[in-house]
Amino acid sequence: MVQRILSTELAAHAGEQVRLAGWVHRRRLLKSVAFLILRDRAGLAQVVVADQTARQRLEQLPEETVVEVTGRAVANPDAPGGVEVVEPGWETLSEPAEPLPFELYRPELRASLPTVLDAAPFALRNARQRAPFELAAAGVRGFRATLDGLGFTEVHTPKLVGYATESGANVFGVDYFGRRAYLAQSPQFYKQAMVGVFERVYEVGPVFRAEPHDTARHLAEYTSLDAELGFVRDHRDVIGVIREVFAGMIDTMAERAGAAVAAAGITLPEVPAELPVVHFAEALELIGAATGEDLSGEQDLAPAHERWLSAWAEREHGSEWLIVTGYPTAKRAFYTHPDPARPGYSRGFDLLFRGLELISGAQRLHRYADYVAAITARGESIEPYASYLEFFRHGMPPHGGFAIGLERFVARLTGAANVREVTLFPRDLHRLTP
Amino acid sequence: MVQRILSTELAAHAGEQVRLAGWVHRRRLLKSVAFLILRDRAGLAQVVVADQTARQRLEQLPEETVVEVTGRAVANPDAPGGVEVVEPGWETLSEPAEPLPFELYRPELRASLPTVLDAAPFALRNARQRAPFELAAAGVRGFRATLDGLGFTEVHTPKLVGYATESGANVFGVDYFGRRAYLAQSPQFYKQAMVGVFERVYEVGPVFRAEPHDTARHLAEYTSLDAELGFVRDHRDVIGVIREVFAGMIDTMAERAGAAVAAAGITLPEVPAELPVVHFAEALELIGAATGEDLSGEQDLAPAHERWLSAWAEREHGSEWLIVTGYPTAKRAFYTHPDPARPGYSRGFDLLFRGLELISGAQRLHRYADYVAAITARGESIEPYASYLEFFRHGMPPHGGFAIGLERFVARLTGAANVREVTLFPRDLHRLTP
Repeated sequence: MVQRILSTELAAHAGEQVRLAGWVHRRRLLKSVAFLILRDRAGLAQVVVADQTARQRLEQLPEETVVEVTGRAVANPDAPGGVEVVEPGWETLSEPAEPLPFELYRPELRASLPTVLDAAPFALRNARQRAPFELAAAGVRGFRATLDGLGFTEVHTPKLVGYATESGANVFGVDYFGRRAYLAQSPQFYKQAMVGVFERVYEVGPVFRAEPHDTARHLAEYTSLDAELGFVRDHRDVIGVIREVFAGMIDTMAERAGAAVAAAGITLPEVPAELPVVHFAEALELIGAATGEDLSGEQDLAPAHERWLSAWAEREHGSEWLIVTGYPTAKRAFYTHPDPARPGYSRGFDLLFRGLELISGAQRLHRYADYVAAITARGESIEPYASYLEFFRHGMPPHGGFAIGLERFVARLTGAANVREVTLFPRDLHRLTP
Repeated sequence: MVQRILSTELAAHAGEQVRLAGWVHRRRLLKSVAFLILRDRAGLAQVVVADQTARQRLEQLPEETVVEVTGRAVANPDAPGGVEVVEPGWETLSEPAEPLPFELYRPELRASLPTVLDAAPFALRNARQRAPFELAAAGVRGFRATLDGLGFTEVHTPKLVGYATESGANVFGVDYFGRRAYLAQSPQFYKQAMVGVFERVYEVGPVFRAEPHDTARHLAEYTSLDAELGFVRDHRDVIGVIREVFAGMIDTMAERAGAAVAAAGITLPEVPAELPVVHFAEALELIGAATGEDLSGEQDLAPAHERWLSAWAEREHGSEWLIVTGYPTAKRAFYTHPDPARPGYSRGFDLLFRGLELISGAQRLHRYADYVAAITARGESIEPYASYLEFFRHGMPPHGGFAIGLERFVARLTGAANVREVTLFPRDLHRLTP
């Protein structure tokens, strides 16, 4: 039997007997001839149905039925890829499909977001709907390849944890053999611990936030790309790695997901050789000088300020990326390293991309005594952190790291208005199925 | 300032001023001279301390203190890598470390498993303890590279699910915004759904089993390497991919984690060009003929039978790997495709490796009506599966897949007696911290 080929391989087989398999993407029943447009994972193929009996069979095959087609590949400049299949025979591999609530073959699905999400396993068969997920897969591949090349080791840390640290309110509780456990909000403490073993580690995995907010940006479960590295001078070494990571992610999308870039109708951003950096205090001054706002004493950036700064970076540095360093220590997690040169400011930073905060990063504390002091200074008890603090008793190097929310990045990249559009099966306040 | 180099790069810098950073692995205080053995992520470096003042400082630096050392690299055939560092100056990057309950520098840690697990962030600094995790990282990299090369797409499916399908007893319950949710026991249904979108998908992620068994093989959370592919003839196409995947994993371990292979003291297995296959019914006959047991009517293989079959595959086929196909349909998950040619037997299979079942795989059902029939025939209600069954209403190709338990595989590879030895922070009936 002839080996199955993909639609994109047809051109290399012109003149030969071929076998294709895929879905009935669309039927075109013209007066003199009919076409079966077959879709497989690579693209579309045009199958010419001239025979009357065959045509009658085709009329009974609804869109999305799975078929295997054999026939002869012949050149036709009007067909997709310049080759079509003639004199076809075909076999139905699955029962005729039931109709969907939308027409998949249209360039853009005409359906509401809830309809699309409920029918994700079918809606994503549309090339434009599927594109963000192909970009995400290529991006994660680039993330790992970049870090592998920089001497990082991949780790898998537990998602079931014994303490609700880090903003305990937004944590999911689990019945754990009669005890209480929690779903990890991040691999933060574990990746830091592993710096003591591997120096440089990364993890790609789910994180869980019991977010009661019903917004276009929040999910109860998302994919976090985490990295942490030891023996840093300060946060600047972390920023250097972030630059390499985004360059690697974007390059891999261009190389491995060119069709998805086209289907999404986007242009991939340039990543400058060095990411432009502005200090939090200078950022407030810049905004204040431009807008006339009195921002003295501000401890954080409002969304409008982030947008202003992004536009400024684009103008001043020709960059869609901007690092804001030196966020006030009081507004960052307790494990953030303060800036010894500027009291009140930390070595924590954010990356703004196209007007939005995309990732947070920092140099962290690395001394046991500093952790105890930082937690105590916030009026918190060290008890819930006790098992975590042990990690710092036996020699931890200066270190720092960052986390990228995969869905949020892909949404920003594709211009999706809602992060759910780029999440396979989103979980939120209302949605737990499919 | 001189750039930091790794211990393994010293040889390339003989005669130069160098900077190293790492942990005080061991001190050797001899009469005439002292040595500081420095450990970094790449290996060990010998630092010669001849000066008396420096020696007194070294005596105050406990093992595992983090230091940065500058000095001159000079050739010495007796030093690790043939080069040592002389005339050192050093700086302590972290407070002197507190003593650990074991001596890390010994080739094998002298500590019980619970002690090692409680102190994982330190115990794994020992090269032999760390090796399985370096093998795991390389193995997962090989898994992905192999599947990327075969046209698979990586997906991220939800771990929070609305229904406790698949053996509901062993599932963890979650408080989900006042509702009941569950932790996914596998990405099974989601990866099948995504075959309808991408044809070939894989996922690396955590799975959760509320296993009340306190054994050396069971974990409440482990890393599952899942793959699923469409347009298969039958289970044999799945087995073909499994062969490629294991070859890729083992090759990548050899290429990328050679030092870990040496530290673990193991030999990596050969993966034959084709995995030997035996049918369940023939397997029972072989065992019965050899042992005299009456195995007629057996529906599963006992551990002793798995060991016997593995030894048989080694003798007959020179293979540490054996595929057993055709497990009785009644003993497999309801979504397993039956074998039309042998009633009562399925297209589900196991892979035995070194006497142990390592993975399960199968061709799955792909027609909606077949699912309804299979679930009904088992006396179950289709209600909990309703949202899942929708996946099969709109054209699903014949497909199949498999899942590899990462920790179980690495344990088998390294000869670990307990799967916890190769899990960073194991979760079980008793263990929820660190």
